[in-house]
Amino acid sequence: MTESYDQIHAVLQGYIDENHEFLSWLGATVESVDDGRMTMAIPYDEKLTNTRPSNGDRRPDIHGGVAATLIDTVGGIVFHTDFDDPIDAGAATINLNVNYLRPATGDLEATARIIRAGSSVGVSEIMVESTTPDGETREVATGQGSYRLFRSARD
Amino acid sequence: MTESYDQIHAVLQGYIDENHEFLSWLGATVESVDDGRMTMAIPYDEKLTNTRPSNGDRRPDIHGGVAATLIDTVGGIVFHTDFDDPIDAGAATINLNVNYLRPATGDLEATARIIRAGSSVGVSEIMVESTTPDGETREVATGQGSYRLFRSARD
Amino acid sequence: MTESYDQIHAVLQGYIDENHEFLSWLGATVESVDDGRMTMAIPYDEKLTNTRPSNGDRRPDIHGGVAATLIDTVGGIVFHTDFDDPIDAGAATINLNVNYLRPATGDLEATARIIRAGSSVGVSEIMVESTTPDGETREVATGQGSYRLFRSARD
Amino acid sequence: MTESYDQIHAVLQGYIDENHEFLSWLGATVESVDDGRMTMAIPYDEKLTNTRPSNGDRRPDIHGGVAATLIDTVGGIVFHTDFDDPIDAGAATINLNVNYLRPATGDLEATARIIRAGSSVGVSEIMVESTTPDGETREVATGQGSYRLFRSARD
Repeated sequence: MTESYDQIHAVLQGYIDENHEFLSWLGATVESVDDGRMTMAIPYDEKLTNTRPSNGDRRPDIHGGVAATLIDTVGGIVFHTDFDDPIDAGAATINLNVNYLRPATGDLEATARIIRAGSSVGVSEIMVESTTPDGETREVATGQGSYRLFRSARD
Repeated sequence: MTESYDQIHAVLQGYIDENHEFLSWLGATVESVDDGRMTMAIPYDEKLTNTRPSNGDRRPDIHGGVAATLIDTVGGIVFHTDFDDPIDAGAATINLNVNYLRPATGDLEATARIIRAGSSVGVSEIMVESTTPDGETREVATGQGSYRLFRSARD
Repeated sequence: MTESYDQIHAVLQGYIDENHEFLSWLGATVESVDDGRMTMAIPYDEKLTNTRPSNGDRRPDIHGGVAATLIDTVGGIVFHTDFDDPIDAGAATINLNVNYLRPATGDLEATARIIRAGSSVGVSEIMVESTTPDGETREVATGQGSYRLFRSARD
Repeated sequence: MTESYDQIHAVLQGYIDENHEFLSWLGATVESVDDGRMTMAIPYDEKLTNTRPSNGDRRPDIHGGVAATLIDTVGGIVFHTDFDDPIDAGAATINLNVNYLRPATGDLEATARIIRAGSSVGVSEIMVESTTPDGETREVATGQGSYRLFRSARD
């Protein structure tokens, strides 16, 4: 590890803000970075929902694709906590699996944990929490991802 | 089946345009509807990409979460071709599985096919095509989804 | 909950031994039962391996299908800790997802945890441990399953 | 491709019979080999079922783990139709995803198709057919797998 987790946190958030169209549009933020673990969030926004507000009394749900996007993203970026070379290294999603648990009607917060970081393939698991229609903060989706790891520019 | 596939096509596209925040923002369109089969598309847009254009010579890739969103959506909506009651019926994603095949640098077009439509659970498979960095139109992601089917307001 | 976890443990093990052809042939055992959590094991046996012993110096690996079988099984049976009626209730697998982490060259032990037990659908996650070729006990596969829950004979 | 599909067929079946404990015990056979496509089967046997025959009037179902085993196996072996070096090359499962469609009460026959065979990762999809309780031959499970490809002893 050549950089501290705080440095990784700052570099990743700067990268998203400055260089990433889709994640910056979604308002994605890196909330915390630790050893083999990372939390990212996407704030609730009507533009992410399944129905226009006038169509129901209840606050509209966030589309499941937003949770899938967050799971895919943080499940891959978490491997930066394992890379020796955080500049040239990267992860490309091989497989993304999501189980949906409950409708999400608030900010999404997803925590990824590295299960296995091999030389060329890594596996992480990701839990997404949000406010549910009953007003409680609960798990709304859980996922696992496998990623092709490129540990240096040579891979 | 109480409506023709053309009617289902028109109703679904109208619903997306008028009532669905996230899908209308993504520019999602229903391209075709047939017996147990549906094609939807999301047009290429820089706001959906992984990097800002200035960061590379190559056209930037669309974030994998957009393909996941399209797979999740068309894989569920395709069950409207099997519902007797297309108004009150609906599908909620239980499980979404995506395998990423190649970077996508053009419009995404996804075709879903119903594998099994049971009384309460349905399974579909979905193939996404796009232009790849080599300029060819190819499969960029393939997925399967299982959905809780609500065949009427009573379910 | 009408039965204690010890009772569930005894009933499930008895059912496997007396009534289940495949699981009893595999030698599957229920190791522990707790609130929303269950551990099952399959002992190492040459008949479960990928190659005959004479083909290599290393102890042969267990075929990945055995870990998938154990994940599928314990990921569904764990819902018996949530059923009010453990006699007529049951779970049928909708979706099984497995990520393979390392070769397994010893007994398989899998712990399932209920993530969500809804009225008709449940989701669990399952971790499998075994001895690996380096002689250490490690995680060899991780999975998630979604199950159709039949909470009573009426479902 | 240095060998014909008939040669690959014979080599794989011989390998299973002579060298593979678990697959030979299951009675697995290679049914056909073609360009990017392979069919394997496991014959119905009471030892593979969920309940002992005396427990019901209906022929007992095959445990879902057997279909998962067959999907995992043929979904990986199918890449031998793409390898230049069928001797030293191989595939190790990264991710296995199975959707269960109907109970299987007859022989299992699974056909795998290569979706993408990259330099280091491949994706295949697999459909399993069997006799169902209604006496018809139908799709009983569908799966997708991603595999780490080792195209030569150097990989």
